[in-house]
Amino acid sequence: MTIPFASLSQFRALLADLPGPDATARDAATARNGQLTKPPGALGRLEELAVWFAGWQGVDKPRCDRPQVLIFAGNHGVVAQGISAFPAEVTVQMVANFQHGGAAINQLSRTFGAEMAVHALDLDRPTVDFTTGPAMSEDEVVAALACGWAAVDPAADVLVTGEMGIGNTTSAAALAAAMFGGDPAGWVGRGTGVDDAGLARKADAVARGLALHRAALGDPLEVLRCLGGRELAAMAGAIARARVERVPVVLDGFICTASAAVLEQAVPGALDHCLAGHVSAEGGHGRLLAALGKEPLLKLGLRLGEGSGAALALGVVKGALACHSGMATFAEAGVSGA
Amino acid sequence: MTIPFASLSQFRALLADLPGPDATARDAATARNGQLTKPPGALGRLEELAVWFAGWQGVDKPRCDRPQVLIFAGNHGVVAQGISAFPAEVTVQMVANFQHGGAAINQLSRTFGAEMAVHALDLDRPTVDFTTGPAMSEDEVVAALACGWAAVDPAADVLVTGEMGIGNTTSAAALAAAMFGGDPAGWVGRGTGVDDAGLARKADAVARGLALHRAALGDPLEVLRCLGGRELAAMAGAIARARVERVPVVLDGFICTASAAVLEQAVPGALDHCLAGHVSAEGGHGRLLAALGKEPLLKLGLRLGEGSGAALALGVVKGALACHSGMATFAEAGVSGA
Repeated sequence: MTIPFASLSQFRALLADLPGPDATARDAATARNGQLTKPPGALGRLEELAVWFAGWQGVDKPRCDRPQVLIFAGNHGVVAQGISAFPAEVTVQMVANFQHGGAAINQLSRTFGAEMAVHALDLDRPTVDFTTGPAMSEDEVVAALACGWAAVDPAADVLVTGEMGIGNTTSAAALAAAMFGGDPAGWVGRGTGVDDAGLARKADAVARGLALHRAALGDPLEVLRCLGGRELAAMAGAIARARVERVPVVLDGFICTASAAVLEQAVPGALDHCLAGHVSAEGGHGRLLAALGKEPLLKLGLRLGEGSGAALALGVVKGALACHSGMATFAEAGVSGA
Repeated sequence: MTIPFASLSQFRALLADLPGPDATARDAATARNGQLTKPPGALGRLEELAVWFAGWQGVDKPRCDRPQVLIFAGNHGVVAQGISAFPAEVTVQMVANFQHGGAAINQLSRTFGAEMAVHALDLDRPTVDFTTGPAMSEDEVVAALACGWAAVDPAADVLVTGEMGIGNTTSAAALAAAMFGGDPAGWVGRGTGVDDAGLARKADAVARGLALHRAALGDPLEVLRCLGGRELAAMAGAIARARVERVPVVLDGFICTASAAVLEQAVPGALDHCLAGHVSAEGGHGRLLAALGKEPLLKLGLRLGEGSGAALALGVVKGALACHSGMATFAEAGVSGA
């Protein structure tokens, strides 16, 4: 396929011209919801979900029959700062695990009937340690955005984006701190399980990264280039493409949400087609979701990444859409109203 | 099948001798969980769920392949007190809707591969208005318990119990107030959507019911007989049978949980095989779950009954068990540890 951007400025221009939901389909779904055999509002958030999906899918009876799960993997130079509990070699090992069907996300994708694919981005060429220079060149970040863009199936009825990359909670914390401000220590968490000393090194690395790249902090796409990683950029590219195709997106955890936030900070409203699948145990995630105005569907203490929390939320989405699209109306069922 | 009780005292004796989980299977599942390709604890509550199911199912790799959803329906004399937004005829109409596949619970059961059955209990013979006398005779409550008992499939790997019965949030509030005390007004909610005047009538009906049956309040099974309903007793019977068969149960909303609480109040620990699928928007439900020490899996504002919140939680259960039972270990996948 042809990628419609070859530079960050072309990608930025694309974001400035995104389609909205189909108001007619949304209104038809709202009307249908009011006729279904249940007391008004009794399905709670499931009702809002169904109407929201109707708008983005452009139909009054939305479906979750063809979910797509995309996992992007990347390696991070910042691991040299001693910020992860696991060695960098785990990224490539886990990619093999995804390919052989052994990871959590494989089981969740199978459970909810999702087509899953994993894209490994130059694992043998980690990004530059962002405490010493920009993580990526413009060509590199554009290539990663393009990888995500190309990976999206326009016929999917919902998209989950996930990631794998030892060191990437540090990168996500740097993005969040760069875009939303506050003490870097407030955005770092234990990731895969770093100890207190590692946590202090993470906060320090983020602080030094922000200081080094302070000239970039006003531009979210430059923040992504300087402090992000290939898998983070690929998720942002996939989420942008989904918007162009009007495929609704379920966001995963801290790293996914930090990547997505780049789009929203670049163009407010760019994440209107995204909902928060869950809130992670990684402390910064809840704060990030609050900043984006997204209320998570699930809160179960997950902090794995891989798209796992979002994939789990597909169960809720499937339930919501099945109720909306499959239930009888009061008239059809001959049930008396209130 | 032979029902192993013919009186409340025989049912009570049964509750005094319930099996516990299989500690060997639970320990094996705990050991397996520690070897799976994820950082320790990164699947959060899903890990606890898998180990808990392993104990009750008695296997180290628990499954959610054969869920059973049982819906019990009953009519309530207390509707004469003007406590519901819907007329009593809706109970039988909704039973027909369940039988024809048009209700929310039909869609949710299909989505999660559950076998669903609806049992209508003497809909043409409502319970006695509990503000004027005991809702049921001993024979009636025992017959309802037996209906629930007989309906359980011992080969199911998880059970959801749900209900339909115009007026039954009033009955559930009466049970909760009788067993856990406090102002009756604190236990009543809007149910299917009663207005302020109806809500005041509900609280008043509960208060009068408690006063009339004060001699019964020390005995949970007598509380069930005097203030409950047939579908509530049937749920309690089904949940008790599930325990005997070591089938784990996902509890639904306020009415289901109030019925289940009868067992726990009769014999502490009788609900150890039950987890809370969700917390309902019906205010008393959260309070009831807290009293029982159950942390709900979902909080999505549902207040429909029919087992809908519990059935929706089957998605989380399926995801948890799929991860636990399907993931590769570090050794199998050749992934380095922390």
